[in-house]
Amino acid sequence: MKRTISILVENHPGVLSRISGLFSRRGFNIESLAVGVTDDPTISRITIVVDGTERIIEQVEKQLNKLIDVIKLRTLNPDEMISRELMLIKVAANAADRGEIMNIVKIMGAKISDITRTTMTVEVSDSADRLETMLELLKPFGLKEVIRTGIVAIQKGTESLR
Amino acid sequence: MKRTISILVENHPGVLSRISGLFSRRGFNIESLAVGVTDDPTISRITIVVDGTERIIEQVEKQLNKLIDVIKLRTLNPDEMISRELMLIKVAANAADRGEIMNIVKIMGAKISDITRTTMTVEVSDSADRLETMLELLKPFGLKEVIRTGIVAIQKGTESLR
Repeated sequence: MKRTISILVENHPGVLSRISGLFSRRGFNIESLAVGVTDDPTISRITIVVDGTERIIEQVEKQLNKLIDVIKLRTLNPDEMISRELMLIKVAANAADRGEIMNIVKIMGAKISDITRTTMTVEVSDSADRLETMLELLKPFGLKEVIRTGIVAIQKGTESLR
Repeated sequence: MKRTISILVENHPGVLSRISGLFSRRGFNIESLAVGVTDDPTISRITIVVDGTERIIEQVEKQLNKLIDVIKLRTLNPDEMISRELMLIKVAANAADRGEIMNIVKIMGAKISDITRTTMTVEVSDSADRLETMLELLKPFGLKEVIRTGIVAIQKGTESLR
């Protein structure tokens, strides 16, 4: 099962290395990792998607809580979270392909960020599933570059981790 | 000066820990880091924004190139790149605030992902500068949670790193 863990950490050098080191040393499988500043510049938030049994998720939580840089963490309820990822895609596109690519972009709620005579660059932010659909749709044209941020997620409702 | 480095790495456990460890050990200042899979599942791409002199950027490149997990890297030309970050914001909002928040969301090209009687959750993907503007505009309502992915960037034009 996949679980998304949201972790508030002190914004110190080395914290990311310690956290990712903990995962690799213990063989926990990181599916996705994203790290960004919060509205407080001394605090960063790391969002990690882990694939493992319930027991492994519990172990991950326990080990993370032992690290002094970790302020707080929460494993999000998968039925009640909004999960998003940002993707930039450079796709091969000559004049004849542009119309079809523009239709895909429109239907998927994406944006075109750049265009040349032979390429288009598309920007899309959505659930991981929808990003896969987007890739499937654009693949036939020829993917020249795919860049993803890793997943971030937030619990629905009024509660917050801060 | 800030520079964005795009790094293709083997998708092995421990690679993120080795790369972030290299930065913290040598005292290089990571402003932002994002890691995501590419269209080839055996290869991940790490986008790092580093703040430092030209000499430091050169050192970073040199040290990264020494790591066996690093396949290829490129420091992007700041005048010719598209740089984006995704942010989820949960903001305090009662019924009287909703109209004003909806206007901000519309003007900034953002989306509303969730709403409760006392909060709204906004999703926005834009340049780091525009995200700061968004935060400034929403701050007066009360920020309950701010989650960012870290920056990803792509070179404009037809070239690609893959």
